[in-house]
Amino acid sequence: MINSDFRKKMADSWFSYLQNQICKEFEFLEKGRKKFIKRDWNKKNKKEGGGTSFFLSGGSVFEKVGVNKSTVSGKFTKEFRQKILGASKNGKYWASGISVVAHMRNPKIPAIHFNTRFITTTKEWFGGGMDATQSHKDMKEKKLLHNMLKRVCTQNKKNYKKYKKWCDKYFYLPHRKETRGIGGIFFDYEINNWSKNFKFVRELGLAFIDISKEIIQRKSNLKWKQKDKEKQLIKRGRYVEFNLLYDRGTKFGLNSGGNIKSILMSLPPEAKWK
Amino acid sequence: MINSDFRKKMADSWFSYLQNQICKEFEFLEKGRKKFIKRDWNKKNKKEGGGTSFFLSGGSVFEKVGVNKSTVSGKFTKEFRQKILGASKNGKYWASGISVVAHMRNPKIPAIHFNTRFITTTKEWFGGGMDATQSHKDMKEKKLLHNMLKRVCTQNKKNYKKYKKWCDKYFYLPHRKETRGIGGIFFDYEINNWSKNFKFVRELGLAFIDISKEIIQRKSNLKWKQKDKEKQLIKRGRYVEFNLLYDRGTKFGLNSGGNIKSILMSLPPEAKWK
Repeated sequence: MINSDFRKKMADSWFSYLQNQICKEFEFLEKGRKKFIKRDWNKKNKKEGGGTSFFLSGGSVFEKVGVNKSTVSGKFTKEFRQKILGASKNGKYWASGISVVAHMRNPKIPAIHFNTRFITTTKEWFGGGMDATQSHKDMKEKKLLHNMLKRVCTQNKKNYKKYKKWCDKYFYLPHRKETRGIGGIFFDYEINNWSKNFKFVRELGLAFIDISKEIIQRKSNLKWKQKDKEKQLIKRGRYVEFNLLYDRGTKFGLNSGGNIKSILMSLPPEAKWK
Repeated sequence: MINSDFRKKMADSWFSYLQNQICKEFEFLEKGRKKFIKRDWNKKNKKEGGGTSFFLSGGSVFEKVGVNKSTVSGKFTKEFRQKILGASKNGKYWASGISVVAHMRNPKIPAIHFNTRFITTTKEWFGGGMDATQSHKDMKEKKLLHNMLKRVCTQNKKNYKKYKKWCDKYFYLPHRKETRGIGGIFFDYEINNWSKNFKFVRELGLAFIDISKEIIQRKSNLKWKQKDKEKQLIKRGRYVEFNLLYDRGTKFGLNSGGNIKSILMSLPPEAKWK
């Protein structure tokens, strides 16, 4: 019988496996010249878990990339628990997830973000998504990204259109009236049929590797100029604004005693504001 | 008889006057080689006011500096009004203020921030403060700043110690367990004796000009190296984190239909995250 503990273990070990695969693939893109640095951390109360972050900066492809996995549990503060599905009664939670943010050296390659998570309160569900942020307009690349994401959704009988809309709505800066990037997919509260959802989450993780490699390899030899870099730095400023003002993941991290370095690993290595 | 409308007019015109003085003095520090660009903006509903922002970037002293003044009115959203003194009943407010943030070219000169405001709801009060953010430790400068601020407080029978503590508490990044800068003063809800408070606010404004000039001129010829700049850029990353995650002024701006460019003018021209 599949019980909750079993599901937690399965999700947790998948996220660890995927983290290692992503790091290997990304190191391969760096032609082995740059390696990830591994760092383990624990919550203050060690019984409440912790995580492992892999970090690489100053690469020829990746200016900065973080691949984080954490598995934590505890009790949300009273204020925060209202905002979390199934947590309003006692605030207890368990959560495991992987998140990746890659800021590229070459401004013609978009920043990419990927995340999948399994959260349990009195309810349990999967969530996640993948999206990209161009500073250099490229419709062909945008199509490529969306087609590849559409395929993995369709194969798993998931509503790609809904996830795409959700992504556009989520990664939106109301104060700028701008989207953060070129979209992708975003989903949450995938609550029924655990096995089916878990399969989707695994396939999306593998698709993320394929999509990033595709996007990076198409362009890694493209020349760029200082003015392209400047555009990228301004776009990254928007990325910072979104992540600090609105991102739920950041807020979840800060409200669940997460590791600051890992939470803020999503911030770009450098950004500008005009 | 001094009524509320009169007090509003007095505060509003003081902030405009001070804004012009600050711009003149800062342009003088740039030896007239760089001039502020003026931009007026209005709230969507023009009856609810607007503001004027002065902006200078790429100077030899100021890498980026904004001097904003706005006078706005309206009704706070239900959620936000709980957080504002005297606004819980109907949410009506009127507010006028000036705020200055200067990010320096020379990393040995601290970033400086100054703000004074007059807010009316069913209550009315002054608030404001001044503080500095060093990336290059300089105890002499820190003392100088605090002594000059202490003097203007003492001359106005204001509790400097309380204001200093408030500043340290306010400009604190809990997730980093770091202060934003080297402190200064912060005050709010100065509610009784309008004339006395207005006098203090005016003298603090003039003191801000003296202090900034003193701080800048002491060091404007100091040589610096790339590694000093790097330290400054990392410190500026913290500045961004504070302003987007915690700053009440930023939240007030976003919640009162303020002008995005002016609100986010406080963000540095460039920042880095390791």
